[in-house]
Amino acid sequence: MAEQTGASGAAGRVLVVAGTHGNERNAPWLLEAWRRGEPALATAGLAVELVLGNPAAWAANRRYLDRDLNRSFLPERLAGPEQEIHELQRARELLHQHGPQAPHPCQVVFDLHSTTAAMGNCLVVYGRRPADLALAAALQARLGLPIYLHEGDPAQTGYLVERWPCGLVIEVGPVPQGVIQAAIARQTQLALEEAFACLASARAGSLRLPPRLVVHRHLLSLDLPRDGAGQPLACVHPARQNRDWWPLQPGDPLFLTVSGEAIPYRPPAGLEGRSVWPVFINEAAYGEKGIALSLCQREVWPLEAAWSEALQATAAGLLVAARPAA
Amino acid sequence: MAEQTGASGAAGRVLVVAGTHGNERNAPWLLEAWRRGEPALATAGLAVELVLGNPAAWAANRRYLDRDLNRSFLPERLAGPEQEIHELQRARELLHQHGPQAPHPCQVVFDLHSTTAAMGNCLVVYGRRPADLALAAALQARLGLPIYLHEGDPAQTGYLVERWPCGLVIEVGPVPQGVIQAAIARQTQLALEEAFACLASARAGSLRLPPRLVVHRHLLSLDLPRDGAGQPLACVHPARQNRDWWPLQPGDPLFLTVSGEAIPYRPPAGLEGRSVWPVFINEAAYGEKGIALSLCQREVWPLEAAWSEALQATAAGLLVAARPAA
Repeated sequence: MAEQTGASGAAGRVLVVAGTHGNERNAPWLLEAWRRGEPALATAGLAVELVLGNPAAWAANRRYLDRDLNRSFLPERLAGPEQEIHELQRARELLHQHGPQAPHPCQVVFDLHSTTAAMGNCLVVYGRRPADLALAAALQARLGLPIYLHEGDPAQTGYLVERWPCGLVIEVGPVPQGVIQAAIARQTQLALEEAFACLASARAGSLRLPPRLVVHRHLLSLDLPRDGAGQPLACVHPARQNRDWWPLQPGDPLFLTVSGEAIPYRPPAGLEGRSVWPVFINEAAYGEKGIALSLCQREVWPLEAAWSEALQATAAGLLVAARPAA
Repeated sequence: MAEQTGASGAAGRVLVVAGTHGNERNAPWLLEAWRRGEPALATAGLAVELVLGNPAAWAANRRYLDRDLNRSFLPERLAGPEQEIHELQRARELLHQHGPQAPHPCQVVFDLHSTTAAMGNCLVVYGRRPADLALAAALQARLGLPIYLHEGDPAQTGYLVERWPCGLVIEVGPVPQGVIQAAIARQTQLALEEAFACLASARAGSLRLPPRLVVHRHLLSLDLPRDGAGQPLACVHPARQNRDWWPLQPGDPLFLTVSGEAIPYRPPAGLEGRSVWPVFINEAAYGEKGIALSLCQREVWPLEAAWSEALQATAAGLLVAARPAA
């Protein structure tokens, strides 16, 4: 379809990636429907590219074939010699076809995920890029979505959205792997369409940002207690299951041994006496990463003018679709 | 450990299989703990064999490697020429090591499963073997467990428990694949220990059976509406999600298209005007089998004396452990 170049900056589309993890079935299901045009995806007039993240993993209904695609976007890994790893090849391909330097570049990306944890409808922001923070703040003001700010975790790096100038993860749960649920799909589309609306407003110079942003900033992750062979000696305590975003106090029950003994939360060094906010509690895919839950600090940040300017500059370069996207 | 032969009949142990599906993690987690002896598994004095159903699939955290192990126990498949299918090999091995004709035979089997469907703690009975029905009735009287009676489904055959003289599936959900949850594990152990207690009572001739048994008898399974490429055009309607065991009336919403249009339940031929009871609603592993849910008829059956006699005859042959199982 014909497109019109934005007023200034590098012209580009908005990239939507579904199925970065092949066993998260809701967003790929929506993607197929949006391509058929039923239901229409309300893109607020923006030119949008819809892409299935990992088609081979999706076909196998597995998170990945060789390696987690959403940990494969570190520049040194992408430039490395490993040619035979499926997900590294796919990461290079996605950047080649839809990256900010592609022939038809994308400037903003939304990566659609689901989780077995009771995260609700939420956003994940990686680091503190000003345009990301402005967009997340706008979405939080409109829909009330909680924000998990992931940073300072050397064990978990190489996320897809980091390779585009601006990008967020939309994360919805709880839903089992391999399962489509109407409410999960609905929440995904709602957040995505509102994100388009925010971008379109920013492009038009009319986006109003809230005075502050509430983030849950990643501190560290905890693993289950395990035996010498790596098998778990305890599971998440029932009082914690499905309590993502709720504060955890020192002494609160955290794990439960198979014999029924509660193991309380003992703050690690530096966090003594403080509340923390757990997220991604008992996410199925994180067992292999040694993560039973991640602990956050809840912070309220005043909006900075530079964030809004960064988002406007990015949005000004976005192409509009000459016709509404089917 | 030393064992004592039962009063009559073929002497045998009780087999407990966990992880017949490798991504159902709760029962295998319990199995490891029972082997360590913490917590002790209360076997009511019976000699019990604990076995991991599909160790290779468990190690891979996948339901199966080549084929569903719990559809691999058809005699003609087991005797067939396919040597290279992992799950057929494993099925033969389980029968060879723990079957009713093994050197140390097992006469009763409990196969421990979990599901992403909201089935609660329940029993699955395959066909109408008298000893199975008596045992299920005893368990239902003690714990109130609902019973899914699977029969007359030529598309789904070859279940593990059918190859032992007496056997039930204990099925607990909802829980995502790959996830251990304390409540799911607790329910599994509760049902299993009560089943041992029932068997021990039957062996002692003191088991009291209820006057009747409530079963949800399998009628047929329904798939999602799909396009020509096999992709789903609708998902389970939110009013149905997590409503396993609740009656479904003609005209009730059943599926929801991605555009938000409800598709009502229209009874297939022979079921016009009748309520049905759905089970295994939106079980993750059944998508590939073309099953979105299964429809049952709720029936109340008076107990038959022959069932009790069959169970007593089976139980009389059970070995008792000279020492309590650790």
